[in-house]
Amino acid sequence: MGNNAVRVLGVDPGTRVSGWAVVQGPLRDARAVAHGVWHLRGSLSARLAELARRLEAVLTEFSPQLVALERNFSGENVQSALRLGEARGAILAAVGGHGLPVVEYTPATVKLAVAGNGRASKEQIQAMVARLLSLPDLPSSDAADALALALCHLQTSPFAQKLPQSVRGLLWRRGRIKRMRS
Amino acid sequence: MGNNAVRVLGVDPGTRVSGWAVVQGPLRDARAVAHGVWHLRGSLSARLAELARRLEAVLTEFSPQLVALERNFSGENVQSALRLGEARGAILAAVGGHGLPVVEYTPATVKLAVAGNGRASKEQIQAMVARLLSLPDLPSSDAADALALALCHLQTSPFAQKLPQSVRGLLWRRGRIKRMRS
Repeated sequence: MGNNAVRVLGVDPGTRVSGWAVVQGPLRDARAVAHGVWHLRGSLSARLAELARRLEAVLTEFSPQLVALERNFSGENVQSALRLGEARGAILAAVGGHGLPVVEYTPATVKLAVAGNGRASKEQIQAMVARLLSLPDLPSSDAADALALALCHLQTSPFAQKLPQSVRGLLWRRGRIKRMRS
Repeated sequence: MGNNAVRVLGVDPGTRVSGWAVVQGPLRDARAVAHGVWHLRGSLSARLAELARRLEAVLTEFSPQLVALERNFSGENVQSALRLGEARGAILAAVGGHGLPVVEYTPATVKLAVAGNGRASKEQIQAMVARLLSLPDLPSSDAADALALALCHLQTSPFAQKLPQSVRGLLWRRGRIKRMRS
């Protein structure tokens, strides 16, 4: 079963809005423990302090064993990369303070894992995480990204990590879900 | 006297090495209370957690009234902007948690304030802060940048803020220091 049995906190970081989700594995019984969106207000430092405080509260309340974050490589200009980095820094410092491991996935990896398509739309991701986790309602886009990150990690078993990306997507699609028609 | 009488914490952020300095104003009696360099080790989240912890310790020990940070606009690629942002985020979250104001200065503004030249070299900055603060030794480059940030803020009085940048540099040069020969 390996690392797919853990409780994962997925975070989609932003300095104004951050999505978060706690998902309990293993993958075949994956369930959303809690998820939501933080709306941050005030000056940049006030918003980042609030982000760190809210993250601390989730770490304390739900005791995840690791944190999954998005790894953004490109498609960002310098100014937006700086802003994303600031949100990541507030989160990573809090997570590091708890001694929790951090895993990172590119947006394409997350989309491939959850929707079987590395270029899936936001709406597809929302629909797929709702379906995979049997959520009664569609999560908001920010929360859906955090749920998808956590699910992406649950999919990444020690076995699957040795396979190329495309094969992992294939196994995932054949195993449990059908590819969405877009 | 305005905002030049405060105790300022200058921080030059990095995810591996960060410089810091506490400087007590007003400008004409400016003195370095403490300064140094943090060498951060371990994973990114461990380093950022350590950065936040060390900053917390300085905030508690020296009770600065505000924090001066460098504002980097350009000359950075996306990946280094992301890294800089992460260090800034860990710092800003800790500072925001203490409710302290943050002021930001561009590197050119800092150099102009301290060395009378917006394109001063690292060595010139080290020499000038040592001279302005009567330090017995040259500070390291990281600590010198933090000292320069704090001095830059002390120079920025409510009166001087209304003047254009070049005039402020001129006043500064004529008031207390002579421009270095490069």
